[in-house]
Amino acid sequence: MSTYMTGDIVAASARGHPVEGIYITDRDGMAVLKLKSGYNIGVDHETCTLVRRAGDQPAPAVPTVTQDENLPELAIISTGGTIASKIDYRTGAVTSQFTADDILRAVPGLTTVARYRAEVLATILSENMTPSTWQALARAAHAAVSDGAKGVIVTHGTDTLAYSASALSFMLDTPAPVVFVGSQRSADRPSSDNVMNAMCAAAAARSDLGEVAVAMHATTDDDLCAVHRGTRVRKMHTSRRDAFQSHEMAPVATVAYPSLKVDLSPEAVRRGETEPALHADLEERCGLLYFYPGMPEEAVRVYEDFKGLVIAGTGLGHVSSGCIGALREMVDAGTTVVMTSQCLHGRVCDRVYDTGRDLLAAGVVEGEDMLPETALTKLMWVLGNVDDTEEARRLMATDLKGEIKRRSDYGL
Amino acid sequence: MSTYMTGDIVAASARGHPVEGIYITDRDGMAVLKLKSGYNIGVDHETCTLVRRAGDQPAPAVPTVTQDENLPELAIISTGGTIASKIDYRTGAVTSQFTADDILRAVPGLTTVARYRAEVLATILSENMTPSTWQALARAAHAAVSDGAKGVIVTHGTDTLAYSASALSFMLDTPAPVVFVGSQRSADRPSSDNVMNAMCAAAAARSDLGEVAVAMHATTDDDLCAVHRGTRVRKMHTSRRDAFQSHEMAPVATVAYPSLKVDLSPEAVRRGETEPALHADLEERCGLLYFYPGMPEEAVRVYEDFKGLVIAGTGLGHVSSGCIGALREMVDAGTTVVMTSQCLHGRVCDRVYDTGRDLLAAGVVEGEDMLPETALTKLMWVLGNVDDTEEARRLMATDLKGEIKRRSDYGL
Repeated sequence: MSTYMTGDIVAASARGHPVEGIYITDRDGMAVLKLKSGYNIGVDHETCTLVRRAGDQPAPAVPTVTQDENLPELAIISTGGTIASKIDYRTGAVTSQFTADDILRAVPGLTTVARYRAEVLATILSENMTPSTWQALARAAHAAVSDGAKGVIVTHGTDTLAYSASALSFMLDTPAPVVFVGSQRSADRPSSDNVMNAMCAAAAARSDLGEVAVAMHATTDDDLCAVHRGTRVRKMHTSRRDAFQSHEMAPVATVAYPSLKVDLSPEAVRRGETEPALHADLEERCGLLYFYPGMPEEAVRVYEDFKGLVIAGTGLGHVSSGCIGALREMVDAGTTVVMTSQCLHGRVCDRVYDTGRDLLAAGVVEGEDMLPETALTKLMWVLGNVDDTEEARRLMATDLKGEIKRRSDYGL
Repeated sequence: MSTYMTGDIVAASARGHPVEGIYITDRDGMAVLKLKSGYNIGVDHETCTLVRRAGDQPAPAVPTVTQDENLPELAIISTGGTIASKIDYRTGAVTSQFTADDILRAVPGLTTVARYRAEVLATILSENMTPSTWQALARAAHAAVSDGAKGVIVTHGTDTLAYSASALSFMLDTPAPVVFVGSQRSADRPSSDNVMNAMCAAAAARSDLGEVAVAMHATTDDDLCAVHRGTRVRKMHTSRRDAFQSHEMAPVATVAYPSLKVDLSPEAVRRGETEPALHADLEERCGLLYFYPGMPEEAVRVYEDFKGLVIAGTGLGHVSSGCIGALREMVDAGTTVVMTSQCLHGRVCDRVYDTGRDLLAAGVVEGEDMLPETALTKLMWVLGNVDDTEEARRLMATDLKGEIKRRSDYGL
């Protein structure tokens, strides 16, 4: 048992390095300290010494939130994640408990951009997001827009934020912006991006944008957020604040900070261009399979009774010849199999090499230049909304929400 | 049946676009034409008209190859792929048949850089590469260096070239450069990169480099090849000639073209720094699993009886809570499970969020900032060479061949 109380400042040694942090709890026989960096670390009790007892630092008062009724109304839909995290000032622990006013208290500047209605849809880490949460999210965003909200902000953990944004892109025809936003560093860290990202997301949500998008830091500085198309965005770094990048296109908008000036790109879908509609059906029995040399056929056969399978193949869209038989059987039995590339960039083309032609002959659909993750959410949506296999195959190769670029050259 | 003969020039219509190409054969009731772009295309017979009969164009004479015995000797080990492809001038079809002199005939300039011994190790498309081919390749490269070759060139299909280069990096301690090279466009295409890549690979193979590396176009121009560290390279585009990129480091060298001037980076391992050694054992029962929201637990359990599993998790290295139980059981049963990130960039850190801490408690090893593909070949190598589980876990988190960067900051 520890002799420390939660909140004590404790010095210790971790892998030979001196560290200092707030004692939180004991776990697995180790003392868990919250470092100044915001990270928690487990340290041996034997290396710990008390620096200062807890209780000297008073908890800050909870500010009240006043909204300006003359501003346009935005909906905030919260799903959890770092941006929605609340700090327990006593323990320093980060949790995702979240009430309607919490984000306005955390980011008071938001009240100068709009007035807000807030809805807590979920309180989960985004790695636990599921297709059914995507559906609930699409319904909530559609309801908010139908009910007069000028735009929607979705707060979301960054891990699977891009998957959710692409799923909503397909489920939702929206005349108003639906802007996902997250935070790579929790609010208790000096480098937290939660305030700037939230402010820029609000500016984007009341702008002339008319599509599902993702607003996050554009650079490592605090001067610009990029707004990415929901079907064309990927988290490309584990920890950097500018981890999210548009894929093979420029961001659909940028938001300068702190001026909050929004610049839409020529490619951005404009507010009001699209009639509102909700098509929230998804076929959840769809998988994503990442090929590697020597992959056993059994890794393919896991998906035998699935309705859909996206493969992240090598190069132009290949798997080993030994896997093609299993794929052919699956296609024959009714599974829609779509090929994408683990290169991430460039277009799949299965007409160049023998393996590709064998895959086409087996009935595999070329996923054009879609990201594997976007192809997965699209396949769920297509198979949830279309019964005919041929029509599903056609839709998978057709641009629906900006996820496929027109070929620049015939045959290339 | 077609009225055309192989080699005829035929005009046709494909999806409403006019095309013209060399008639190759009939397949699935379609006429297969080879376009000027190098791609083959199937067209309806009804849209075909004859432009010119075959036989007017004489096949070029086969040049003889003379080697300069005063130049240093390099070994060329061929495994197949686009760079080793030979054009059948009569049919226009690209095949991978390859004899020792073929690459010197295709790239006569090579004889000005070195003299060569050539060995055909395999003639396969690289998506069919297996760990046992990697082992044969490591043995052949080691034998060539031990036998006095100043360097080794490995010609390889680009699809899985990076996997092979990383596998050899672990199996081989080499005082001389072992340079993988491929080609993104086959030799019959005007934009083929085979000549320049081969020339630059030869220059790199006789340079002062002393590690396993990959030489490919650095830009879309024909003026510079980049030489990437074998453990830090990834194919990032399906078709561009500069598809290969160094990951989180600068290339270890560049080769200017056509001057063939080699510039080694300060980080490059120098010729002779490493004593030659071969450790070719690999544990083939290792898998790579790409997590996505809603992934069923059964996709994890495919690997239950495997010795090793690399996960490409989300963000800092997460999977859904529902998958952690299966991973814990696997670790308890002796499987080494290593976490990497599908973000590709940045370091895994499972001490920040609950899911990560649960994964650590389950015994999952943090894969630091290794690429998922590199972590897979490394895990095969570690488990092939070390019996003790704890030692294997330690090695997976230790930099062996430049695959892990030292942390810039403690705790970050």
